[in-house]
Amino acid sequence: MAATLQRISNVHLATMVGEGYGLIQDGVIIFDQQQIHYAGPRESAPSVTVNDIDGRGGFITPGLIDCHTHLVWAGSRADEFAQRLHGVSYAEIAANGGGIAATVRATRAATEAELVKVATPRLQALMAEGVTTIEIKSGYGLSLDDERKQLRAARQLAEQHPVSVATTLLAAHAVPPEFRDDADAYIDLVTNTIIPTLAGEGLADAVDAFCETVGFTPAQTEQVFQAAQAVGLPVKLHAEQLSNQHGSQLAARYQALSCDHLEHLDEAGVKAMAAAGTVAVLLPGAYYFLRDTHLPPVALLREHGVPIALATDANPGTSPIFSLQLMLQMGATLFRLTPEECLRGVTVNAAQALGYQDRGQLKAGLRADLCWWDVDDLATLTYQFGINPLVACWHQGSRR
Amino acid sequence: MAATLQRISNVHLATMVGEGYGLIQDGVIIFDQQQIHYAGPRESAPSVTVNDIDGRGGFITPGLIDCHTHLVWAGSRADEFAQRLHGVSYAEIAANGGGIAATVRATRAATEAELVKVATPRLQALMAEGVTTIEIKSGYGLSLDDERKQLRAARQLAEQHPVSVATTLLAAHAVPPEFRDDADAYIDLVTNTIIPTLAGEGLADAVDAFCETVGFTPAQTEQVFQAAQAVGLPVKLHAEQLSNQHGSQLAARYQALSCDHLEHLDEAGVKAMAAAGTVAVLLPGAYYFLRDTHLPPVALLREHGVPIALATDANPGTSPIFSLQLMLQMGATLFRLTPEECLRGVTVNAAQALGYQDRGQLKAGLRADLCWWDVDDLATLTYQFGINPLVACWHQGSRR
Ligand SMILES: [Zn+2]
Ligand SMILES: [Zn+2]
Repeated sequence: MAATLQRISNVHLATMVGEGYGLIQDGVIIFDQQQIHYAGPRESAPSVTVNDIDGRGGFITPGLIDCHTHLVWAGSRADEFAQRLHGVSYAEIAANGGGIAATVRATRAATEAELVKVATPRLQALMAEGVTTIEIKSGYGLSLDDERKQLRAARQLAEQHPVSVATTLLAAHAVPPEFRDDADAYIDLVTNTIIPTLAGEGLADAVDAFCETVGFTPAQTEQVFQAAQAVGLPVKLHAEQLSNQHGSQLAARYQALSCDHLEHLDEAGVKAMAAAGTVAVLLPGAYYFLRDTHLPPVALLREHGVPIALATDANPGTSPIFSLQLMLQMGATLFRLTPEECLRGVTVNAAQALGYQDRGQLKAGLRADLCWWDVDDLATLTYQFGINPLVACWHQGSRR
Repeated sequence: MAATLQRISNVHLATMVGEGYGLIQDGVIIFDQQQIHYAGPRESAPSVTVNDIDGRGGFITPGLIDCHTHLVWAGSRADEFAQRLHGVSYAEIAANGGGIAATVRATRAATEAELVKVATPRLQALMAEGVTTIEIKSGYGLSLDDERKQLRAARQLAEQHPVSVATTLLAAHAVPPEFRDDADAYIDLVTNTIIPTLAGEGLADAVDAFCETVGFTPAQTEQVFQAAQAVGLPVKLHAEQLSNQHGSQLAARYQALSCDHLEHLDEAGVKAMAAAGTVAVLLPGAYYFLRDTHLPPVALLREHGVPIALATDANPGTSPIFSLQLMLQMGATLFRLTPEECLRGVTVNAAQALGYQDRGQLKAGLRADLCWWDVDDLATLTYQFGINPLVACWHQGSRR
């Protein structure tokens, strides 16, 4: 071990190894920019020459992972939000070019640099709460060039900030206006052109789709999955949010990394996900914002051992919320997840939802993505909201 | 006007005068540490020698007012929160000394200095969002000395921070353990001793009570109001949260500044409040945290012209949330208030709920409590959550 090693002592470690928090009381963590070298009890820690940090009795967790966001878009839907509260119907707003169409228009009109600029405060808000890895989807471009622009903006955000970005190509998010009456033709463009081209350019780490009555059919979704499979990209799915399309069973057949939303998931879907090792990504921000009352089947997910993740779903239409700490609170309050489940949902299970084996836990060999929290009790991270107890954060071993 | 004047130009002013935002596009505000001297259109602004600030096209609003908090308490209920999520019943937790009894025990055991210390990060979180005036209730001491200690801690917080604190004596919050079977005897202590003594010491700006099946009866509440009236203090009431006790009609008879919660308020109560000029303080954080589904009667409040305020209700049992910006979001999303109503709810109407005529609007003669927001549209303050768009904040004319 070289002299660049860091050691944090006088802390408790939430390793996320095994069940629950994987708590090590009075632990020590030793790391450098390559990896964690040791995360365990003080008494077994190797004695090395290091830069010592006094953890002051706080807690160390893995860096937080927001595994489902649509962070890169242009335009504002604040006015539309206000209109709806003043009694204007969604239909009327849509007829006037509002809704997702407005975001697509503004995102298409923006340059890549403009997209980076408007997404920056969103990213910084999440980073200030301890996010060290974030997934960012495309899906407001809906053309080859505009989807490329969104994904390139996401990659640029990673270059400009000490954070890791996983990109997901979500061209099958909505039917663009120029294909209004021919969704199949758009899916042909997505599968024959957009996916192979952007995969070839190395811009996409995964492929996602929106399988819903108001989105794409299971048959169209399967075409998207086949195109992803053909270029070697893993898939994810926006599934069973508003109705049960059995999208999760389809996704499981393609070994999806995750199915997301899942308010209307049934037991057959849960079983399929369990068998495929697919993570259930729950999105309490969208549930809250849409005043949904149909809860995702948490008991079934537990019963069948499906890993549960939590994410912001940050997006202008259904979750304009840039706080993963609030998702911990909402995961517990709205979905009745335990504090342990909530924290696993933004660490180890969120890593799995992105296909990462190198992060999400504190153990030797993994990346040193760490959060240091000034709390007396890990449940405080879930229970309380509004005071950010993050003392410091390391991304790949560098304090930021 | 002296040379210490400040002028902010190149901004829009949400004056909160008249209806809605009271918006002045391209306005100018001129102020010093005593007062606002001018808040109006650029073209009519007096020409004076001032310290000039370029508002960069942002918005100025009155400083935010959180008009209902229980900010000063000791102990943590995070563990209890976790237990409930692990399936332990509230009855079981209460039988083990949990619930409000745990907070009373811990608050009684704490020194005044300790209370100030634990409340400080809570206050600072709210200040960081633009809060310039905050109400803080007692109600976890439940004895003369311990209620005094809480109110003195609240006064100390005001001395230590550039923020104004309105204190409310809420001795009639719960029956303390030593009076378990004799609430009337406790009310005698409150009315004969606690209220007159602490009012005499200048520690209370108002008196509040919790009128509820699980709190105090209307008859006991009226005794509290009479004791307050006798010492010249205005009253407020925790009313109709869990059931309709007709507390708001009672409170209106005592010209209450506000009735708070109000999920079960009926039209007779609304009319009584309207006639008395009593503000309806809605607390979406508690509604959210308790997973309440019984909405306060917003349409009736509007119909009868009852001013609506919004507050955090920050407290360890039912709203461990230290974010007034989140209350703007929740006021709109959960209660369907318009963005204008939400912003009035934390400015002009919140001032009225505390009996202040010197703040809550931007107009000449009022205190220069100001927030400067980097937003394109005031609705963004309500629509979006997690990015704090506060550029700067002035408390009594001093930038903090
Ligand atoms: Zn999504
Ligand atoms: Zn309260």
